[in-house]
Amino acid sequence: MPTRGALFDPVFGATRVSEHLSDQAWVTALLDVEAALSCAMATVGLADGEHCAAVATAAAELSQPGGLDIVALGRASATGGNPVIPLVKMLRERVGQEGVPASVVHPGATSQDIMDCALMLLTRRAGTVVLADLTRAADSAAHLARIHRSTPMVARTLGQQALPTTFGLLASSWFTALDAAAIRLEIVLSTLPVQFGGAAGTLAALYPDGLRIADALADELGLARQVTPWHTDRVTIAELATTLGIVAGAVSKPATDITVMASTELSEVAESAPGGSSAMPHKQNPVAAITARAAARRTPALVATALSNMDHEFARAAGPWHAEWETVTDLLRLAGGAAHQLSVSLTGLQVHTESMARNLDITGGLILAERVTKALSAHTDRARDIVTAAATSGTRLDRDPAIAEHLSETEIAELVDPAHYLGHATDLVDRALAERPTGGSR
Amino acid sequence: MPTRGALFDPVFGATRVSEHLSDQAWVTALLDVEAALSCAMATVGLADGEHCAAVATAAAELSQPGGLDIVALGRASATGGNPVIPLVKMLRERVGQEGVPASVVHPGATSQDIMDCALMLLTRRAGTVVLADLTRAADSAAHLARIHRSTPMVARTLGQQALPTTFGLLASSWFTALDAAAIRLEIVLSTLPVQFGGAAGTLAALYPDGLRIADALADELGLARQVTPWHTDRVTIAELATTLGIVAGAVSKPATDITVMASTELSEVAESAPGGSSAMPHKQNPVAAITARAAARRTPALVATALSNMDHEFARAAGPWHAEWETVTDLLRLAGGAAHQLSVSLTGLQVHTESMARNLDITGGLILAERVTKALSAHTDRARDIVTAAATSGTRLDRDPAIAEHLSETEIAELVDPAHYLGHATDLVDRALAERPTGGSR
Amino acid sequence: MPTRGALFDPVFGATRVSEHLSDQAWVTALLDVEAALSCAMATVGLADGEHCAAVATAAAELSQPGGLDIVALGRASATGGNPVIPLVKMLRERVGQEGVPASVVHPGATSQDIMDCALMLLTRRAGTVVLADLTRAADSAAHLARIHRSTPMVARTLGQQALPTTFGLLASSWFTALDAAAIRLEIVLSTLPVQFGGAAGTLAALYPDGLRIADALADELGLARQVTPWHTDRVTIAELATTLGIVAGAVSKPATDITVMASTELSEVAESAPGGSSAMPHKQNPVAAITARAAARRTPALVATALSNMDHEFARAAGPWHAEWETVTDLLRLAGGAAHQLSVSLTGLQVHTESMARNLDITGGLILAERVTKALSAHTDRARDIVTAAATSGTRLDRDPAIAEHLSETEIAELVDPAHYLGHATDLVDRALAERPTGGSR
Amino acid sequence: MPTRGALFDPVFGATRVSEHLSDQAWVTALLDVEAALSCAMATVGLADGEHCAAVATAAAELSQPGGLDIVALGRASATGGNPVIPLVKMLRERVGQEGVPASVVHPGATSQDIMDCALMLLTRRAGTVVLADLTRAADSAAHLARIHRSTPMVARTLGQQALPTTFGLLASSWFTALDAAAIRLEIVLSTLPVQFGGAAGTLAALYPDGLRIADALADELGLARQVTPWHTDRVTIAELATTLGIVAGAVSKPATDITVMASTELSEVAESAPGGSSAMPHKQNPVAAITARAAARRTPALVATALSNMDHEFARAAGPWHAEWETVTDLLRLAGGAAHQLSVSLTGLQVHTESMARNLDITGGLILAERVTKALSAHTDRARDIVTAAATSGTRLDRDPAIAEHLSETEIAELVDPAHYLGHATDLVDRALAERPTGGSR
Repeated sequence: MPTRGALFDPVFGATRVSEHLSDQAWVTALLDVEAALSCAMATVGLADGEHCAAVATAAAELSQPGGLDIVALGRASATGGNPVIPLVKMLRERVGQEGVPASVVHPGATSQDIMDCALMLLTRRAGTVVLADLTRAADSAAHLARIHRSTPMVARTLGQQALPTTFGLLASSWFTALDAAAIRLEIVLSTLPVQFGGAAGTLAALYPDGLRIADALADELGLARQVTPWHTDRVTIAELATTLGIVAGAVSKPATDITVMASTELSEVAESAPGGSSAMPHKQNPVAAITARAAARRTPALVATALSNMDHEFARAAGPWHAEWETVTDLLRLAGGAAHQLSVSLTGLQVHTESMARNLDITGGLILAERVTKALSAHTDRARDIVTAAATSGTRLDRDPAIAEHLSETEIAELVDPAHYLGHATDLVDRALAERPTGGSR
Repeated sequence: MPTRGALFDPVFGATRVSEHLSDQAWVTALLDVEAALSCAMATVGLADGEHCAAVATAAAELSQPGGLDIVALGRASATGGNPVIPLVKMLRERVGQEGVPASVVHPGATSQDIMDCALMLLTRRAGTVVLADLTRAADSAAHLARIHRSTPMVARTLGQQALPTTFGLLASSWFTALDAAAIRLEIVLSTLPVQFGGAAGTLAALYPDGLRIADALADELGLARQVTPWHTDRVTIAELATTLGIVAGAVSKPATDITVMASTELSEVAESAPGGSSAMPHKQNPVAAITARAAARRTPALVATALSNMDHEFARAAGPWHAEWETVTDLLRLAGGAAHQLSVSLTGLQVHTESMARNLDITGGLILAERVTKALSAHTDRARDIVTAAATSGTRLDRDPAIAEHLSETEIAELVDPAHYLGHATDLVDRALAERPTGGSR
Repeated sequence: MPTRGALFDPVFGATRVSEHLSDQAWVTALLDVEAALSCAMATVGLADGEHCAAVATAAAELSQPGGLDIVALGRASATGGNPVIPLVKMLRERVGQEGVPASVVHPGATSQDIMDCALMLLTRRAGTVVLADLTRAADSAAHLARIHRSTPMVARTLGQQALPTTFGLLASSWFTALDAAAIRLEIVLSTLPVQFGGAAGTLAALYPDGLRIADALADELGLARQVTPWHTDRVTIAELATTLGIVAGAVSKPATDITVMASTELSEVAESAPGGSSAMPHKQNPVAAITARAAARRTPALVATALSNMDHEFARAAGPWHAEWETVTDLLRLAGGAAHQLSVSLTGLQVHTESMARNLDITGGLILAERVTKALSAHTDRARDIVTAAATSGTRLDRDPAIAEHLSETEIAELVDPAHYLGHATDLVDRALAERPTGGSR
Repeated sequence: MPTRGALFDPVFGATRVSEHLSDQAWVTALLDVEAALSCAMATVGLADGEHCAAVATAAAELSQPGGLDIVALGRASATGGNPVIPLVKMLRERVGQEGVPASVVHPGATSQDIMDCALMLLTRRAGTVVLADLTRAADSAAHLARIHRSTPMVARTLGQQALPTTFGLLASSWFTALDAAAIRLEIVLSTLPVQFGGAAGTLAALYPDGLRIADALADELGLARQVTPWHTDRVTIAELATTLGIVAGAVSKPATDITVMASTELSEVAESAPGGSSAMPHKQNPVAAITARAAARRTPALVATALSNMDHEFARAAGPWHAEWETVTDLLRLAGGAAHQLSVSLTGLQVHTESMARNLDITGGLILAERVTKALSAHTDRARDIVTAAATSGTRLDRDPAIAEHLSETEIAELVDPAHYLGHATDLVDRALAERPTGGSR
């Protein structure tokens, strides 16, 4: 059976997160849920503790790489539309040999219960990797902001040089978004709930013990308890998907900035391990930022798919449910990969302050036109006209005779010095750093 | 200038919310921001109180319907790429006639500051309408859940009859999602922040008063204060957009259920004011649910657009920023319209409990096969075979001779009575109702 | 290295198409392109025929399963952002041992040339499978249309019973869309072009032989010749992606119809191998149609991603290009899987004409209200009122005394016979069948 | 009733195309279809020629601006879910006063027939504007390609300077995509079909004249005849939507390139009427290109919505159909606006060949490393090392002593002259120009 993942996951930064999203990871998660359910039955006194142990052991063995034939399992899944039915059969047969009755495995459950809970486990496992990379990227950006809080660079608006700012302030816009996304993700990951409703959401087959078993199952899995089964209320899935979309969006902005700043003409930053070219030794492709962008730009559409899938008709949807599995795991993989590549890009990012200075000087002081005009206005009514004329003719403001008529060389030099017109840039960096979430998680 | 909105907004439930999203509403919001900025200058002591009053008056006058020529404003906006530049010119000219200096209008601001703040105002105004309709829909669903907590109906999975449930439990799955979406929306609406950074995000033109002015502006507008300008950190926009996507998704599920349950064959519900047909007097189109679906299904893609737009390069993005305006307002319009139509559909929804009972009986007890098999197992090893044979031959379980061999007529009648196999349905309704958010907002 | 594909591809019908989209398939396609390029050099007289043969042999060996370590290749790909660089190194080393100079491998090419051509090969190979399944589905639908051209069933509009139609006419709407999609796909597949431009799109390293080599490469690969390199003109990719989106959309309509018609209440069709449930022996889940829907509904968003990726800046895009690879292959996989599952669903679909007849009778003739009103109008001015009154009171039209006052029992029976009010249904089926594309390809 | 369109349409280039997509345009198109249907009845001999004339006159009068109250019509549309029902009532009342029987208006039609045909009319009218702007943009790009076929500029890959190319070749990649999109659009516009099926798609109410009437209606409207009603086979809509998505994608590539090339640092192009800033007189915002990007980037998601809407269940879909109206018109508006803004940007685009030359020199010949290495190899085995060392140390190749050891000053000067390493650039421009579609439409 030909498979995917080995070739492209590393390119998109998903090597590590994908371990938790593979076929094997799915099988493991499904078996973890089945084992936990058998043990939840024991917890509430409806099954034997030894049977619980036997199921858990069997599940663990089947979860080993090679523990079961995933290709065969996949093929057997087609009939029922999901892998739970054949997996339960396999598990029952295995423990049946040790005298565990079939009723101890998958009691009162429906396939969706197991799939939903397994997706929650996968999300927690993969999500932890995503969060770590995201935090690392935010920390690196914060570090850059701190050390470059007053490093002048040009602020560009609509692609044009506008005014001076500091690189630290640009980097602040990176980590504030990354932090905001990380906080959301952390909350989502820490509140992932169990989903357990039985064949029709009433837990009828387990009545009157259904609610206790659902809670015991949550506890076994370390998931939050449910208020009610949410087999068709997919806000949980939607929150997860949209949060991952926001994670990827927060990643794409710095990745884009880095790609542009690393361009030959700007040369303001370089990655510490850029991709080269033997034929073109001057090329310094910021590969990590580029592939972060590539991974991130595939996520918005997946979020749209997840939101479309909220339209779950009746008690189990004929399509929208199945369409969630790979959508959510792709989101984890791509948002996680993007976060990873950004953290690679930011860690050890080389900042060329001399290029920043050079670029600040390109317009010959015109990016400080606003300031010069204001100063000139104290001396002449024609201030704006004089500056505009210089801009039009391409004359450097510090060499414009019409300006020199009114202001001294020293005054002009001071006025066109970008470092003297940074406004609140450093204040804002300090504020942003001070507001960062702290404590255990970072 | 030909316009849009009058013809289709009513169809999609957006009549009321669209009032806050029209060209006129945009102009009003932009002028509100400009007036607030002039007054913020006064608050911090950099402008005259009288000048603030004059700007506020002029802004209010221009905001009147007909106060300014919107068609001309639109045409003048094309040159600069947004309406702020010509609007400021207009405002300055007007107050200039009363001796207010140009510097009091739009001080230290850039177009994006005004557009972003105006979008926050529009969002708060339109969002309040959305939230009200959403809450109304949730309340109606909760009401249905309460009165039908034990009304038996069939639970359908993958389009097939599965087991009995109650209509109340189905309605619970509606309001839990609507409530969850409403809570998110409420939080987003109550924390919408000011955005104010000046030409390059450093507030240079207002230094050293920029931070105080930004806070005063927030206070004037009743928006949350910003930590830093978020002109390129678009998590705020993304959170808003994704929340509206979740609102629409939460609406689409009950709208779909109602559309299916209102079908001629099921006839389980009917809207109180269905759309009819003169040629086909029997048709009872659940128009409100149908148009709720139509509006809702257009939102996921808009969320994707909003997320794609997070890729704001540098200090002001050349495209992604402009692409937000109509995307966010369309989301408010469509999510709001969908919520409104659902609230119309749910309010006074006619519940045909007799049709629900009839549909429960269609399979002749087969939806209780699980239960009958269990009971039969006490008497024979062939329990499953007997029931499967009945299912295959289409024999009603309460008339199957093989079953009657083992169980009395009374026993069988009780076993195939859906009302006796509802599991935790009513418990879950009670739980869901008990967990509802209460207090002021609902 | 954990991988994906074995577990879920069978569920979504993608077992066969995925063979052409796996990591292994990519590696094979990339090597096929490199071999073809070496041989194109030989064709134009710039390389030795023996060297071409040596490269082709080495490429074929490396393409064998196990021929190279894909996990290691993937890891090595991360540095440069794509697998071509390490693959060329591997190939050069291998043939170098046989005295083939490095310059014969990958001459004048850039990674994108190889990736783009490989994607075209993958598309042709996988696309052929998609087209076959799509054609099979269309043929099955046409078969159903033919044999049920005059089988009466109810036409439902907005979920409500409207008027009689024939099942053949419904099935016609299935195959006309499937055929239209298949024609588009066939055209796209038969015109897939080579892409070859060298490092910057000028073929400078091969000047003055670049154009001839590009044509020779196209001929070697059986691809269409290019007019110019299209490394940044992505209409080709967009056409492919949108066509696959249309394929999936054409699949989703019949899949949805079948899912609804197979519902317990309607029971108008059943799949020949429905998914069952041991606990619920009456369940006949139309699993093939359900999973076709699930696969299809994930494609629109992928099309959006492909269209967003048309924004290729300059000569090779920093992200949009990389984002195409998995997007296009996912589209092939999902559109193909959906087509496959629909063909499974349609082949041997059981058509319950007696259920169709029963459903036609549910309204007691009201679906023929239009017709009865018209006939009644010849006798009374109150025709519409009489029929509307019957509809309101739920009286069957053939038992309504007010109608019987004016029309004989025979007349009424004829009027409410659905088979007598089918309009042009059979004409339209015949037309649609007559217009079907015929000949070699189907 | 507050409306939209006047404020933002001009910004996004949609002033002209929106005239054909307004509420008024919809009303006109709907009335055009109704009039054509009445006259089609006359054509086949089922209605009076005078009645046809009376309906046509009434429709034309109602179509005048102010001819009917659109706000009231919109409000009345909500009940039935579309504007056709109240519009027909209005039309019937008006012609009824002149003795035209109600049966002559809207005979045998259903709302969807009228809406679908009206959408085709709107598409043809608005699409013609889109096509004209698209063609203008392509022509302008072709003009630039022709006059700059050999103007050297740097080719950038992954954001880095790579090798020399010509501006003409870059412009060729623009028009080849624009032309390809235009051809597709032209085909779609010239084959828009009538849609006419009556209440259930069988044309029962018009039997046995339904097929002739459908053809007569097509002829009246100048639309293509239908094979069968396509009320639920939405390939037509999907083709239209995807084509518009490709149009927008083809626009976005040159718009992005222009935005980047117009940046202060590159300064390679400038729009003839850039957006300025009074405070920053040096800013030359390429507003047309920026707003083209903004409009274009909103289209992919709308295409996804259109494709999702192909899932039309049964004979008229409960939501997917309604969701098409604004989706398609938004696509026309945005793709058209984007094409318009690009044509504005390209017309009179200032090309700064001296900046292109300056940028070519930035790396000191390193973009010709490949070529220098090759030449050096004839003299030393250390060719690659020497060039790499120069690249690493940032030495200009034409001033590197290690190179000068082997090559003469003249040789080196020739080798690093970009104009001598353009490969097939001009050949490819000529090819692309020669392949342009010609004749009537352009």
